[in-house]
Amino acid sequence: MVGKLKRYLIGKPMKSNALEDEKLSKLKALAVLSSDALSSVAYGTEQILLVLMTVGAAALWYSLPISIAVLGLLTILILSYRQTIFSYPSGGGAYIVSKDNIGVTSGLMAGGSLLVDYILTVAVSSSAGTDAITSAFPGLHDHRVLISLIMITFLTLMNLRGITESASVLALPVYLFVISIFVLIVCGIIHYATGGVSAPAPHYGATLSSVSLFLLLKAFSSGCSALTGVEAVSNAIPNFKQPAEKNAASTLLMMGAILGAMFIGISLLAYWYGIQPNEKETVVSQIADATFGRGTIYFIIQGVTALILFLAANTAYSAFPLLAFMLAKDKFMPHMFMVRGDRLGFSNGIIILGLLSALLVIAFHGDTENLIPLYAVGVFIPFTLSQLGMMIRWIKLRPAGWIVKLLINTVGMLTTLSITLIFIITKFEQVWMIFVFLPLVMLLFHRIYLHYENTANELRINLALDKPVIKGSTIVIPVAGITRVVLNTISYAKSLTDNVVAVYIAFDEEEIHRMEAKWEEWNPGVRLIVLRSRYRSVMKPLIKFIETVEWKTAESDHITILIPQFITKHWWQNILHNQTSLLIRTYLFTQKDIVIATVPYHLNR
Amino acid sequence: MVGKLKRYLIGKPMKSNALEDEKLSKLKALAVLSSDALSSVAYGTEQILLVLMTVGAAALWYSLPISIAVLGLLTILILSYRQTIFSYPSGGGAYIVSKDNIGVTSGLMAGGSLLVDYILTVAVSSSAGTDAITSAFPGLHDHRVLISLIMITFLTLMNLRGITESASVLALPVYLFVISIFVLIVCGIIHYATGGVSAPAPHYGATLSSVSLFLLLKAFSSGCSALTGVEAVSNAIPNFKQPAEKNAASTLLMMGAILGAMFIGISLLAYWYGIQPNEKETVVSQIADATFGRGTIYFIIQGVTALILFLAANTAYSAFPLLAFMLAKDKFMPHMFMVRGDRLGFSNGIIILGLLSALLVIAFHGDTENLIPLYAVGVFIPFTLSQLGMMIRWIKLRPAGWIVKLLINTVGMLTTLSITLIFIITKFEQVWMIFVFLPLVMLLFHRIYLHYENTANELRINLALDKPVIKGSTIVIPVAGITRVVLNTISYAKSLTDNVVAVYIAFDEEEIHRMEAKWEEWNPGVRLIVLRSRYRSVMKPLIKFIETVEWKTAESDHITILIPQFITKHWWQNILHNQTSLLIRTYLFTQKDIVIATVPYHLNR
Repeated sequence: MVGKLKRYLIGKPMKSNALEDEKLSKLKALAVLSSDALSSVAYGTEQILLVLMTVGAAALWYSLPISIAVLGLLTILILSYRQTIFSYPSGGGAYIVSKDNIGVTSGLMAGGSLLVDYILTVAVSSSAGTDAITSAFPGLHDHRVLISLIMITFLTLMNLRGITESASVLALPVYLFVISIFVLIVCGIIHYATGGVSAPAPHYGATLSSVSLFLLLKAFSSGCSALTGVEAVSNAIPNFKQPAEKNAASTLLMMGAILGAMFIGISLLAYWYGIQPNEKETVVSQIADATFGRGTIYFIIQGVTALILFLAANTAYSAFPLLAFMLAKDKFMPHMFMVRGDRLGFSNGIIILGLLSALLVIAFHGDTENLIPLYAVGVFIPFTLSQLGMMIRWIKLRPAGWIVKLLINTVGMLTTLSITLIFIITKFEQVWMIFVFLPLVMLLFHRIYLHYENTANELRINLALDKPVIKGSTIVIPVAGITRVVLNTISYAKSLTDNVVAVYIAFDEEEIHRMEAKWEEWNPGVRLIVLRSRYRSVMKPLIKFIETVEWKTAESDHITILIPQFITKHWWQNILHNQTSLLIRTYLFTQKDIVIATVPYHLNR
Repeated sequence: MVGKLKRYLIGKPMKSNALEDEKLSKLKALAVLSSDALSSVAYGTEQILLVLMTVGAAALWYSLPISIAVLGLLTILILSYRQTIFSYPSGGGAYIVSKDNIGVTSGLMAGGSLLVDYILTVAVSSSAGTDAITSAFPGLHDHRVLISLIMITFLTLMNLRGITESASVLALPVYLFVISIFVLIVCGIIHYATGGVSAPAPHYGATLSSVSLFLLLKAFSSGCSALTGVEAVSNAIPNFKQPAEKNAASTLLMMGAILGAMFIGISLLAYWYGIQPNEKETVVSQIADATFGRGTIYFIIQGVTALILFLAANTAYSAFPLLAFMLAKDKFMPHMFMVRGDRLGFSNGIIILGLLSALLVIAFHGDTENLIPLYAVGVFIPFTLSQLGMMIRWIKLRPAGWIVKLLINTVGMLTTLSITLIFIITKFEQVWMIFVFLPLVMLLFHRIYLHYENTANELRINLALDKPVIKGSTIVIPVAGITRVVLNTISYAKSLTDNVVAVYIAFDEEEIHRMEAKWEEWNPGVRLIVLRSRYRSVMKPLIKFIETVEWKTAESDHITILIPQFITKHWWQNILHNQTSLLIRTYLFTQKDIVIATVPYHLNR
């Protein structure tokens, strides 16, 4: 039943060698990996305007130079990540690059930061998508958490089905979004050029005493939140069709170009239209309204924008399981993240990401907006570490043209470092949590690594010296009476060794005599020892007996406890039988170095 | 930790031979077993008056003859149960008497009816006790369910501590209740005799056309609810100190005398004082108020009454586990009800009773008043069956003086049968459920019995013919690599037989070669078979391999699957290791007649 449902939701299992067919072409990769970055266009300009507006409408002209600065930063990031892709063709996320060039601790800082970030991405964007839906249908407002959870479930299932299938489903909305924003920008420019705009643009270059450097930096850093998601491509190189690194680099450039053009286009239109940020209506909505009026095109733009905000989460579904796989391969995360599921995806990573982000949505009752700055810092820390790693790499390896490459990464590093600091300084009350959980996550990585190392050391043998040693064998059979199960078990034991003893726990004298007499009558060729329990406990005398046997023979013999057990036909029938054998098994298993074997007898009725 | 808490709540384990010390003296037995019956005094008279009041205050005089009829019924019940006690000195509840003399089905009907009834008793009286508390402290009204659950938990723990301890705790409130009601009756009579009552008593003997036979019967049956709990003593004979039957019989007589005197006393005072039933104040409260005024004595009476209503539940805690034990001994209920706990009580019965009644309280949100008639019918069905059983017994055995005995039981049977019918006719809308759940419970008993019988038949062997058969042995060891655990397991296997084969599941060609080469280098003297899994599943190829081995050797050999397993030091470390061995074990265990043994290796760190 469960199996059938799983097949229906996720699809048939796929052979391991089908992995190559699951790889992404450039166009599909763009759809899967860029939704996070592109969706930032929907709120990037607005974030800048919101900060400037705190001083007054006259300051809004600053949004133009700030947007250009963000565009410059985007260019630097794209260029430096392009360099990373060619240096790390098998996947060069911030984790790998930092670990390789700076050291393990930096790698774990980058990796931990990104892992937490992907969880935040899913929580934040599913909440944002839900807000878009409930704005359109206010009646659904009370069911926000439920809607977010349904969305997360949907994304989780899509990704469990496999990445190409999810790419096919997700490509359409991504491209629709890109097309509709470009249509908006082109029509908007025409509209402005033909003098269709009545509101005056803010006076460009007006100096305002109230505008401080702090404010401008805060506005800049807010705009930088549009750059989150850029790193997704460099993490995901192994998912690309061959030649993977070339395809990944082209995809990255395409994404950068589209993102840059859309961002600067929206910022320009907002400036020309003299748009002021407004709690009730987004900037994109205002521009669309002013350009087309509230007609069909307006609603298409709004609908596709809501959709892309929600799909931004999908980028995390590609990146999280891959990063978890890499960390697990290096023993910093549990092995289970290395297992490919029926559909060849790292299903444990996908499921854990879905579960943790769902928990976050539930914990914050769907109000995850406050997590956005935290999430931006979580991106810029690995950005900085990754650039620093590349710098060290160029200095060490010094390939042809390394000075230019070093220069690009140095500029990139300094910029992202500054932005990280700006974030921490200007929005400390929203990002302080990172100083708590990042060390915790890194500690956890470290503890996991230690456990795996210790286990491996304990289990390692010397192939030349450590060989099997043959010993004698003593078998103890706890019996609860003389039945077919006991007969079976004794047959089995006697086939292995002559050294077999049966133990019976009696509660009174009468029972002792009865059992002894019956055993003598049966005479199965095995000695019976009857123990008396004064406290009606079977476990205690049995364990004491086993300890005596252990003490006497552990040196010379392997000791085996053979538990006769009948298996009921239906699981609920178990309630009718005392589960003493399970208790015995669990206790001995966890406490003693003794072999515990169950000899099953399956009941037919 | 859990063990310590258990010790603290329940006490140290007791030796089996301490059982005799746990037996009840007459006075303690009266406290434990009569609280249910005696507590009925608090509402018995009121139930009669409430029915009569539907016609008018003039009809209230009928309460006197009805009370006398109830007293007569009580006498008959006490006399006939006294006969049962002497006939069944080892415990003669309705289940035993009906099963012995009428047949198994009647026994199960009586037993099932009583079992359900005890659960109802606990639910109803804990709710009633809670109502008494929340009447005094209205602020607690929102926490009624919680208070009931705390009370049930308290009673469950007291009973798990053992019966004499619970008797010591419970005796005081029971005797306080009896004393305070007698003080009330005596002072009330003096008060009336000295002319202290102003309200006129209803005109005795006034004929009223509106009073139908149906109404009188309904009033009578309502009064009979005061008789529930009388059967508790005859069930509990094994709990009495020697000579058990004599002590039980005296206790029953004492209880009957006290109950009868209190009941008729309250009814008489209610008549003399001209008391009318009132939603806001109980009859006992009105009498106490009229006698003493709202002083200290009044509040003592009210408090003790509330306490006794709540403690009525305790009777069920004595009776339910004993009845469950008897049913389990006859294979109609799970074996677990036969196990005596650390403190020598039938702890499973006590716990199940507590759980089920707590569920009932939760399901009804603490409003269990509607269950009272159901609960009365549940008592009178076994009453009737038990009397019928005794009648048949006298006719069969014909001991000295059997005619008188038969007469007593016949009168008893006819009366209780009539009351059962009156209940069903006059309160059908409240008792119809018994016709649904009683057959269900009986069906369940029957199914459990069948399962035990089938299991016993399947497992039974012929001591003379069925002897152990010695066969060969084949051991299969699934290995995940070459480690100390595998070394251990191979050492063990080779100590038992030479017929050992190791199986390794590989996912690609390279892995196959690597493993084969390493195994050859190690050369542990055991053949390695490497299987390739195309779907990344370890289970499927392994099971297929085991099935092949089974097909080839099951005739000649016992097949053993030896699972090498390291045990982590802390349970949470298990999350870091794939639990494949557990999966393999569970599958094989439930599906195949193959011995599965785990060779543990305990990690030190």
